[in-house]
Amino acid sequence: MNFKQKLQHKQQIINNRLMELIKINNVPETLMNSMKYSLEAGGKRIRPILTLTIAEALGGNTDDAMDFGCAIELIHTYSLIHDDLPAMDNDDYRRGKLTNHKVFGEAIAILAGDALLNFAFEFLLEKASNNLKEPYIKALSIISKASGSTGMIGGQVIDIESGNKKINLDELYNMHRLKTGAMIEASCIVGCVLAERYDKINIVKEYSQNIGIAFQIVDDILDCIGDKEKLGKSIGKDEKDNKSTFVTLLGLERAKELAKEHTEKAISLAEEIDSTGFLTDLTNYLLNREN
Amino acid sequence: MNFKQKLQHKQQIINNRLMELIKINNVPETLMNSMKYSLEAGGKRIRPILTLTIAEALGGNTDDAMDFGCAIELIHTYSLIHDDLPAMDNDDYRRGKLTNHKVFGEAIAILAGDALLNFAFEFLLEKASNNLKEPYIKALSIISKASGSTGMIGGQVIDIESGNKKINLDELYNMHRLKTGAMIEASCIVGCVLAERYDKINIVKEYSQNIGIAFQIVDDILDCIGDKEKLGKSIGKDEKDNKSTFVTLLGLERAKELAKEHTEKAISLAEEIDSTGFLTDLTNYLLNREN
Repeated sequence: MNFKQKLQHKQQIINNRLMELIKINNVPETLMNSMKYSLEAGGKRIRPILTLTIAEALGGNTDDAMDFGCAIELIHTYSLIHDDLPAMDNDDYRRGKLTNHKVFGEAIAILAGDALLNFAFEFLLEKASNNLKEPYIKALSIISKASGSTGMIGGQVIDIESGNKKINLDELYNMHRLKTGAMIEASCIVGCVLAERYDKINIVKEYSQNIGIAFQIVDDILDCIGDKEKLGKSIGKDEKDNKSTFVTLLGLERAKELAKEHTEKAISLAEEIDSTGFLTDLTNYLLNREN
Repeated sequence: MNFKQKLQHKQQIINNRLMELIKINNVPETLMNSMKYSLEAGGKRIRPILTLTIAEALGGNTDDAMDFGCAIELIHTYSLIHDDLPAMDNDDYRRGKLTNHKVFGEAIAILAGDALLNFAFEFLLEKASNNLKEPYIKALSIISKASGSTGMIGGQVIDIESGNKKINLDELYNMHRLKTGAMIEASCIVGCVLAERYDKINIVKEYSQNIGIAFQIVDDILDCIGDKEKLGKSIGKDEKDNKSTFVTLLGLERAKELAKEHTEKAISLAEEIDSTGFLTDLTNYLLNREN
């Protein structure tokens, strides 16, 4: 299999596991439909792929890495539902489909988000309760910190508060380090912790911080020059919303260079984590993606 | 100390611990203010008092019971913030104070709710990660199930969907069993699990189910005949909103009788759990409260 085939294969098994996990009995039908709708809306599954790839590369158990990666994807999905709400980014489309609240209404969208966050902890705590292992609890603790008020949620608050004013490059870095970076970092470190390869933590952390920033810069570039059809959302929204981005602060060319620098740094670290080359290819793919 | 003094003492130490826990470094100021605002808005702290009382009565560790009880209160508080949102119950006042979104705006209120839910798991997982004990993980698993899509969130969805139609008594019981009952049950069972007194689980469960229903019936009665000043919110809202309640379905007198029956059943069980009499007094207090 070439890289694209391997990537699609991983995405497929992650999607299958997510759909299996979300089959919860006795959930009100509307709530279940709303949770499923956003989970099935696709996305690249970058976070669980990172957890899975790093855990496997370091000798960890695949099933465990899959479940923790899926929990991170559940949390990522809830954060998108809440971010899209009228009170926040007020987006009608995400990945080419109507956003959750446009289909199910705001009340159900808020509750479906709450339920996805809750379920991430719920099913992993049940797993840990049935088979208590120290790395499970360490990994859960890392995820909960990354998704919390000093991580992802904190970043979203900074993003909202930056909406109406110009911020500088340091503030932009800090916002993204929290808003998207914290969960990407957790995805990688959890793979390392599940494999109990604490000797690799620092390399994995540095790798994740570099791809986190590269990922965000590429997002900003795509919002500026991307293809609306491929992105599944309108472009030029950042500029219209008068948002500070890597492109508005640095210009397009310097933003491209910076994404490349962080990617090259990440690639040199990826080679120390995964000898199969998959993580290296994945890192390159994240820089060169079109959506 | 008499019962009222003991109750106030417990409320005080719970409030102190909540304020201590919520001192998190590096949280954006607005988010922290919003989280604190709703936590400090008071409330009777019934859930942590139940956890604490039952754990202590059964020989459990007070500090552990306090922390798990506080986590349940954090989750309860988040659920109130989200319930009050315009897209849900659209309430302007709660406990005599403006609701969270009226003070901080909808975006921050949604995120403060998310952050409180997340933080409940976050600080307990950190505690468990530093000192791994089986009852911690069992208790965490019980809490996460109770607050999730087959518990509290499921109940809230049923409540929203019942808004515009008449429901029958069975449906009303089911809704409350989930919406408020699940977390009250968890508060009690967690006390029992932390004390590792699995021999008492069934009694504690039956006790909690009876007070859960009695608590809700009293809520419905107070909405009908309560004192606006003491309640801190407008009364007659259920009738105005055309909601099915124990009072609208059974009439005031039968609702009062039913609350008394469940309370009496709960009291007979309370005596088997707590020989000090505090749980019995608390159960009586819940029936006779004015807010």
